[in-house]
Amino acid sequence: MEQVGTDADGTRVEDAAMLRALELATRGPENGRNPRVGCVLLDPQGRTLGEGWHGGAGTAHAEVAALEDARRAGHDVRGATAVVTLEPCDHTGRTGPCTEALLAAGVARVVHAVDDPNPAAAGGAARLRAAGVEVVGGVRQDEGEALLTVWLHAVRTGRPWVTLKVATSLDGRVAAADGTSRWITSAAARRHAHGHRAAVDAIAVGTGTALTDDPVLTARPADGSTVDRQPMRVVVGRRDVPEGARLRGPGGPYLHLRTHDVTEVLSRLAERQVRHLLVEGGPTLAAAFLRAGVVDELHAYVAPVLLGAGPSAVADLGITTIDAAPRWRTVRTVPLGDDVLLVARPAPVAPPGAARTPEES
Amino acid sequence: MEQVGTDADGTRVEDAAMLRALELATRGPENGRNPRVGCVLLDPQGRTLGEGWHGGAGTAHAEVAALEDARRAGHDVRGATAVVTLEPCDHTGRTGPCTEALLAAGVARVVHAVDDPNPAAAGGAARLRAAGVEVVGGVRQDEGEALLTVWLHAVRTGRPWVTLKVATSLDGRVAAADGTSRWITSAAARRHAHGHRAAVDAIAVGTGTALTDDPVLTARPADGSTVDRQPMRVVVGRRDVPEGARLRGPGGPYLHLRTHDVTEVLSRLAERQVRHLLVEGGPTLAAAFLRAGVVDELHAYVAPVLLGAGPSAVADLGITTIDAAPRWRTVRTVPLGDDVLLVARPAPVAPPGAARTPEES
Repeated sequence: MEQVGTDADGTRVEDAAMLRALELATRGPENGRNPRVGCVLLDPQGRTLGEGWHGGAGTAHAEVAALEDARRAGHDVRGATAVVTLEPCDHTGRTGPCTEALLAAGVARVVHAVDDPNPAAAGGAARLRAAGVEVVGGVRQDEGEALLTVWLHAVRTGRPWVTLKVATSLDGRVAAADGTSRWITSAAARRHAHGHRAAVDAIAVGTGTALTDDPVLTARPADGSTVDRQPMRVVVGRRDVPEGARLRGPGGPYLHLRTHDVTEVLSRLAERQVRHLLVEGGPTLAAAFLRAGVVDELHAYVAPVLLGAGPSAVADLGITTIDAAPRWRTVRTVPLGDDVLLVARPAPVAPPGAARTPEES
Repeated sequence: MEQVGTDADGTRVEDAAMLRALELATRGPENGRNPRVGCVLLDPQGRTLGEGWHGGAGTAHAEVAALEDARRAGHDVRGATAVVTLEPCDHTGRTGPCTEALLAAGVARVVHAVDDPNPAAAGGAARLRAAGVEVVGGVRQDEGEALLTVWLHAVRTGRPWVTLKVATSLDGRVAAADGTSRWITSAAARRHAHGHRAAVDAIAVGTGTALTDDPVLTARPADGSTVDRQPMRVVVGRRDVPEGARLRGPGGPYLHLRTHDVTEVLSRLAERQVRHLLVEGGPTLAAAFLRAGVVDELHAYVAPVLLGAGPSAVADLGITTIDAAPRWRTVRTVPLGDDVLLVARPAPVAPPGAARTPEES
């Protein structure tokens, strides 16, 4: 990160513009192969000339949208500063490289939050510098990375970000003894879960769940809004799924992966540009993902019900003693009607000697 | 409830005094056979003459404490108004009746929040009225009842208020497959649970837990404060508990109830003036209390851990289908480090036809 030719005032204005760009970025879709990006164009006096964000694959990138916005308003963008949440790309996809658009427009300075880790798109900063543009990276980098958690993970690791959803009673049951599960969790929790479905690229269930529950697996937000792009519906396992199964009916694309190998599932989905996979169960599939250590976030909807019997949220994990259990760090708890949602991520592994102090009960 | 001889201003002053009395009441101990009560004495101009609260069995009642407070300050209490959270008692226990103390002091008016349901103590208002004192009940009654939830329940029903505590993984396990359970929940959750132990009169475990875990079952607040009165330690079940068991060592009184009959457990404890029983497990005892329908509040500490195997929080409840599961209403969710505490109470039974609308998953 370099800070060149910027006085304190200019930095403050650019910092504020970056916060605005981060806000604009959230207008883009959460799912899809492309990252959410926002851009604000400033004139040399720090006045805003234009704003833009990326609306998803096939639409203009944020920088290009901001340039168009400025031109529509009749502004001269030569000598301007582009404040953008992600390093401008330097490759031609369905749209041309942003670097070229910025150079053609005569932009003099680019400030970005996050370096582009995508090998196909990176090199934007170098290209711009080579053409004489001042480039400053790392401004509001943490906020930029938080916005792009899923996308950055997918690009850096080559596999989708995996969210595991479980919806259980307080004693960890996903259904009663006879298999009935409508509804352990409240309407508020189900609404929340539907909202989350709309943010992912694919939803996976095991063949057991597909055959027993015959779920639809579409995103149906409670506000009645249309979901532009329904998530892909993925069934994992060797058993056949009947053609009449509801998840093969209207909704997102259908994919049956006849394997029990989680790594294979993730690479097959990565090939299909799935950045975010939501694993919805059942217990066997949940256990397979947990055993493979590839769950990046846990969404646990817990309902104040005690059942005493019935299937558990996860099958055997091979954990025999409490100290061997992987720990999670709760990043958010969300009360949802009578239920509560815990959002957790794998806890950093404790250094040796940092074991909990035993206490008596 | 009657409102006699009070102008709007007077009512406002008395309302504020009642809020203060409710606050004073919380200085008393949460456990013990007696209710928490607070009292504020006002002169006819609405000025505070004295304040008092009840510090537990064997100490002065709130009204008497307030009268003493006023006298210590040299105030004349004749013609005063006593604002008190509970109807003054009219019986002689370890202290004399409050009605007599108020009459002897020449108090002219009594305002209280909650009528005394205790058959042995009730009749205070009638006695005072008969002696010419103006009595107004039901002021801030809801707040008064909330403060006395446990005590009112115990007095009205003749059995202790029962809190069931469970501490589980997200998949409802109370221990790993080998029985190890230290620590599923975090230090913050354990601290909270110890604070709660200090508020109850008795803690019950089954013989299975007593023999397997050898718990101490004392209240040890994290702030190092001394607990004036350790809760009684109750073991329920027919098996013998060895003399060397830790819960028979230093701590609260020890009681072994050799029965599996929950109703008998509660009546035996009620005889011993237990107003608040905390059931800490294990799964068999928890299930027995749940099946008997006598759990008044559920404290579920949930830790973001998935175990996949291990004993469940509750044994079989005889629930075979989801619609038969008793519902709970969450009254509070408390984040505790990485864990979350759900406090829930039995939900009112839904009227026929109020079933949830089925939705598809």
